[in-house]
Amino acid sequence: MEPVTYEDILSAQERIREWIHRTPVLTSRLLNRITGAELYFKCENFQRAGAFKFRGASNAVLSLGEEEARRGVLTHSSGNHAGALALAASLRGIKAYIVMPSNAPRIKRAAVESYGGIITECGPTLESRERTTAEVQKRTGATMIHPYNNPVVIAGQGTAALELHEEIGRLDAVLAPVGGGGLLSGTAVAMKRVKPDTQVFGCEPQNADDASRSFRAGRILPVENPNTIADGLRTSLGDQTFPIIRKFVDDILLVSEADIVRSMRLIWERMKIVVEPSGAVPFAAVLAHKDRFA
Amino acid sequence: MEPVTYEDILSAQERIREWIHRTPVLTSRLLNRITGAELYFKCENFQRAGAFKFRGASNAVLSLGEEEARRGVLTHSSGNHAGALALAASLRGIKAYIVMPSNAPRIKRAAVESYGGIITECGPTLESRERTTAEVQKRTGATMIHPYNNPVVIAGQGTAALELHEEIGRLDAVLAPVGGGGLLSGTAVAMKRVKPDTQVFGCEPQNADDASRSFRAGRILPVENPNTIADGLRTSLGDQTFPIIRKFVDDILLVSEADIVRSMRLIWERMKIVVEPSGAVPFAAVLAHKDRFA
Repeated sequence: MEPVTYEDILSAQERIREWIHRTPVLTSRLLNRITGAELYFKCENFQRAGAFKFRGASNAVLSLGEEEARRGVLTHSSGNHAGALALAASLRGIKAYIVMPSNAPRIKRAAVESYGGIITECGPTLESRERTTAEVQKRTGATMIHPYNNPVVIAGQGTAALELHEEIGRLDAVLAPVGGGGLLSGTAVAMKRVKPDTQVFGCEPQNADDASRSFRAGRILPVENPNTIADGLRTSLGDQTFPIIRKFVDDILLVSEADIVRSMRLIWERMKIVVEPSGAVPFAAVLAHKDRFA
Repeated sequence: MEPVTYEDILSAQERIREWIHRTPVLTSRLLNRITGAELYFKCENFQRAGAFKFRGASNAVLSLGEEEARRGVLTHSSGNHAGALALAASLRGIKAYIVMPSNAPRIKRAAVESYGGIITECGPTLESRERTTAEVQKRTGATMIHPYNNPVVIAGQGTAALELHEEIGRLDAVLAPVGGGGLLSGTAVAMKRVKPDTQVFGCEPQNADDASRSFRAGRILPVENPNTIADGLRTSLGDQTFPIIRKFVDDILLVSEADIVRSMRLIWERMKIVVEPSGAVPFAAVLAHKDRFA
């Protein structure tokens, strides 16, 4: 049995339609000229709560039964999933318990607070995070919504690729950043069904190359203390995302830190949109592998 | 006789349609919440060559007869009009002669060069600029396309307001930045015809308040050595733009430098789009005059 099917993504699309933004697809003549490719940028930086994470969080919150929902939702995250889950919970009028490390970026904390999420601080270690999360769950009975290792979240993230395909029907390749693999696995399931000859690539920093190594080794090789500006991609693949990536993804492309910075800068200067480092990684991969995409 | 009519703007819209981007209109729940107003941002920062200036430049270049066009176009500008005219000229396959002061921003020079514009450098004084422009015109016979004090340019800039109205039909007020007044006068002519009860406001820095003072005095009072971060708005009104502004504009609103910086930051952080200071001035005016727009 497939953990996530195309039908799951279609249902998610229907379920979250009223909550999400259908984000625009932008193009740039200049970036096409630089790369020799025809590029379409699906702008999930304009998504509510600032990232595609809101798609998965919405699908998860809307999939809860009444009884479950009443007890609220719970996650651990120092990034965009935290704010996304807090917003989704507030839209359903339920509580979101967010476990955040004490060194989480201030702006991510502020986002959670602005949506009414209830933050419990933990120490910046895996052990502290797991202990704190277990405590909060025991106390509240809230449903854990993992940032990526969860089929309902993966199905939600896959809706971005569906929209992109609806808008631009003739894509030769789709590139997605890969951290824990939620977006990439959802994207791959969607694309390989709606247009099987489209190649699907995961893109990650050389300095956090666990997906690439795992893909080649055929088993999950976690990353240790990755040091990359792309803070959203420091996580390792999960046991739900890895099998999907192995099955449906064509390759994992690596980019250097310099590539990422150069790409962010080009996107800011030329497309006039603000992307975080993780969001610039797929464009960086096109720049670093021009021959493949020209 | 009106220098610029609604019909001129309609013709411009038809003329430039194939060359320009129909730019998106963005909204932000958060910025609406902060201001208590329902705001629609017409994103001319996504326009080709990076600014609404390309609308006026395109209309001017496309309005030339064959014989005139062959001799090329000429302007003096250290800003977005320079790049916009160079791009428009290159699309028609004619020459663009750009007189730029030696202290023009490097990025604006690079834009002109990337579109094949021919730069002649002048000293950073009015006298040097006028002398150099006259010399180039004498030598080439090119047609002068003033950045704003030109009815064909004004008509082109007015097309942005038409698009905004087509997309959002129920605007209570439209705000445009005002430097030389090309965008504001075109906007006012368009809006007062398609929806006469919509208020039209010009917005400018306190530190370059010539439009506000001129509007109140009933005659053009040029600004002297304005010192504002909004470099696109340091110019003074022209004799073509001022009568239109006097007739159709409801008021000129002033903003502080701190308002401009805060607005840019909010737009970057919350809307994830990059705007230059001049482009943030209308939003700064809404923040500074909340009661008026709530």
